[in-house]
Amino acid sequence: MSDDFKDSVFGRKLSQHSGINELMEDLGHALDDSSEMIMMGGGAPALIPGMEAVWRRRMEELLGDGRRFEDAIGLYDTPRGRPRFLETFAEFLNRRYGWDLTAENVTVSLGSQSAFFLLFHLFAGPDGGGRMKKILFPMVPEYIGYADQAMLPGMFVGRKALIEHTAPHRFKYRIDFETLNFADEVGALCVSRPTNPTANVLTDDEMQRLADLAVRKNVYLIVDNAYGAPFPNILFREARPVWNERTVHAFSLSKLGLPATRVGIVVGPPEVIRRLGAMNAVLALASASFGQELVEPLFASDEVLCLSRATIQPHYARCREHVLKCIAESFPDSLDYHVHEPEGAFFVWLWLRGLPLHAKELYRRLKKRGVLVVPGHYFYPGNDEPWRHKQECLRISYVQSPDEVRRGIRIIAEEALKAYRG
Amino acid sequence: MSDDFKDSVFGRKLSQHSGINELMEDLGHALDDSSEMIMMGGGAPALIPGMEAVWRRRMEELLGDGRRFEDAIGLYDTPRGRPRFLETFAEFLNRRYGWDLTAENVTVSLGSQSAFFLLFHLFAGPDGGGRMKKILFPMVPEYIGYADQAMLPGMFVGRKALIEHTAPHRFKYRIDFETLNFADEVGALCVSRPTNPTANVLTDDEMQRLADLAVRKNVYLIVDNAYGAPFPNILFREARPVWNERTVHAFSLSKLGLPATRVGIVVGPPEVIRRLGAMNAVLALASASFGQELVEPLFASDEVLCLSRATIQPHYARCREHVLKCIAESFPDSLDYHVHEPEGAFFVWLWLRGLPLHAKELYRRLKKRGVLVVPGHYFYPGNDEPWRHKQECLRISYVQSPDEVRRGIRIIAEEALKAYRG
Repeated sequence: MSDDFKDSVFGRKLSQHSGINELMEDLGHALDDSSEMIMMGGGAPALIPGMEAVWRRRMEELLGDGRRFEDAIGLYDTPRGRPRFLETFAEFLNRRYGWDLTAENVTVSLGSQSAFFLLFHLFAGPDGGGRMKKILFPMVPEYIGYADQAMLPGMFVGRKALIEHTAPHRFKYRIDFETLNFADEVGALCVSRPTNPTANVLTDDEMQRLADLAVRKNVYLIVDNAYGAPFPNILFREARPVWNERTVHAFSLSKLGLPATRVGIVVGPPEVIRRLGAMNAVLALASASFGQELVEPLFASDEVLCLSRATIQPHYARCREHVLKCIAESFPDSLDYHVHEPEGAFFVWLWLRGLPLHAKELYRRLKKRGVLVVPGHYFYPGNDEPWRHKQECLRISYVQSPDEVRRGIRIIAEEALKAYRG
Repeated sequence: MSDDFKDSVFGRKLSQHSGINELMEDLGHALDDSSEMIMMGGGAPALIPGMEAVWRRRMEELLGDGRRFEDAIGLYDTPRGRPRFLETFAEFLNRRYGWDLTAENVTVSLGSQSAFFLLFHLFAGPDGGGRMKKILFPMVPEYIGYADQAMLPGMFVGRKALIEHTAPHRFKYRIDFETLNFADEVGALCVSRPTNPTANVLTDDEMQRLADLAVRKNVYLIVDNAYGAPFPNILFREARPVWNERTVHAFSLSKLGLPATRVGIVVGPPEVIRRLGAMNAVLALASASFGQELVEPLFASDEVLCLSRATIQPHYARCREHVLKCIAESFPDSLDYHVHEPEGAFFVWLWLRGLPLHAKELYRRLKKRGVLVVPGHYFYPGNDEPWRHKQECLRISYVQSPDEVRRGIRIIAEEALKAYRG
């Protein structure tokens, strides 16, 4: 910003132009009824009637159940969340995966984004001996929301993905395990699964190798399951979570359809969870109980698994089929475009190889034509290497109506063609 | 913590033993039905039937109003909050105080505590030129929740209050303006009004002097109105907010009876608000819409002012009268005890002059006897001066039932007497 505001290094770092702020500001258009934008930018979940009916039912149950509603809004949570919710959630995962968790393994945060801020600053930052401890992203592109969370420079390292061409106009990223060595300044590894933005799902084998590596190197492996297993289960291939004494899982209620309740859940070893709770008290005092109260019985009864399998996953599977059809219709075969294997989440990660202009210019042209997407260069936390690939990709959400998705994809194809023609 | 966990300096600083974590963990007992504790520790608001009826009515209105409920949980907020809420809130303050705010002056955070974390790190921290910018608390004791929020040491400075004896067993803190000079490493001043923990209300004159000083010194003045004007209005003397181009006001829905919705509101100059929004996107993605949707019409209609004046303030005024009566009954006149003038909020700040043991030991003895309070030594952010006064005070909340308050005060008096007798 251009005024002569005297902020601190922290303030400057956190309030500078960031991809996530641009994205969330763009997303704000959705709240503005007069906007004609086709919103293919943000990670807002679809409004699925079957899920909305569940939340309405739950809300009526809360109101009808003595003081449950009053308690859900009127009592402070502990810094780690509602004790009953923590127990329910631990038992839910135990039933699902045969793990051996207790409430000591679970903490609630004000949304998943806040959980990552806490995790990154627990494991990274000055080590007190003159060195900077780091978070290592074993494979970038990675989630845009991580990129600006470091309070100081030098806290993130990101390693370039390998590219495997899997079919005509299709590719898949792979972790480059050959070069995945690191010294002891790394405090934790971090991956999202499915990967936001690429729709990649790291294989069970890749996950096991990362989990083993974390144990061997005495670091933690943080896994972001916001779109993944076991809920909301926006997965189009099998994916089993890893678990050992060095694993930290983050979950979110957002993609169940509750983004505005701001509930993130972290599962990990007690020494990590205890610290996250203490940090949450300092930063945020308490968590938001309302979302926990709304969903708790669904986790107690495993209903959330049925809903994820029978309502949420099929909804996004239909959207995915539709967007792939639209792409095949709108993009000429002669174009050098490549779609990442859409294995999870609800994004198309479109690679326009050799695109003669920067993705951010394409983003601006698309915005002018009424289509919001996210340019790909924001998704490289901790990686400053020159790599043309970074400016050749777009993240495109496909949760809007079939008609909007068709129109949006057509406009993207038109602008891509125009760009190639110069 | 005693294990060999390798955290960063940030992690260690934020997850170490903190007063606010102890307090919030203690508060968690309230969620445990089996607890027999008399909860006079935390800042949990009273459960006021008249207010609970309002929230239930509002919830039913939301459910009955088309898709309002679905939108309140299912749509991401912008990083600054719901656009309509921001406008409503600006106009609400304009009507009340004749200010000239627009939505550009307002941002929503995930609770007031999170807002202060953002504000402190916007204005304080390394300045990039080798110096540490600071937050200056013009008068400590100040709020326990600030004390551990700094990511690095040296970000806070707190100045000792002057003590004025106002009546037998009564005193009042005053800002020591004589010594309130500071160099340009200070980025902002910060006060809570009413002061948590002391129940002090800085006078209009003191506030005006601080506001003028901020302008003269080119720093910002942050005012925490969590308990104050114009809502929830837990004030027992007049208090008019100051406003100029260097003022930043923080408000909270918590003491309206909605602590679990985690909504804080910051009002300030646009250059500050813009940065807070950007920081909130990075740290927290979006705000929690549910609370905003619940209260919005109450701000649009000014009903929140009537409720604050006619329901909330009288409730706490009755509690205050009761606790003062209990103290007069339980504490012998011969005891060297002093209660801070209870001008606002819902705490008694009890000074046991010459107490032969540390307040934290008294806290432990009281906890054993089933009464939770907060020992006073936690309330000195940025001040390490030896001052016996620090270990001679307790913060005592008086929102519990009249019977509990009477029993609690009696036990506190008994333990105080025992302590003096050695």
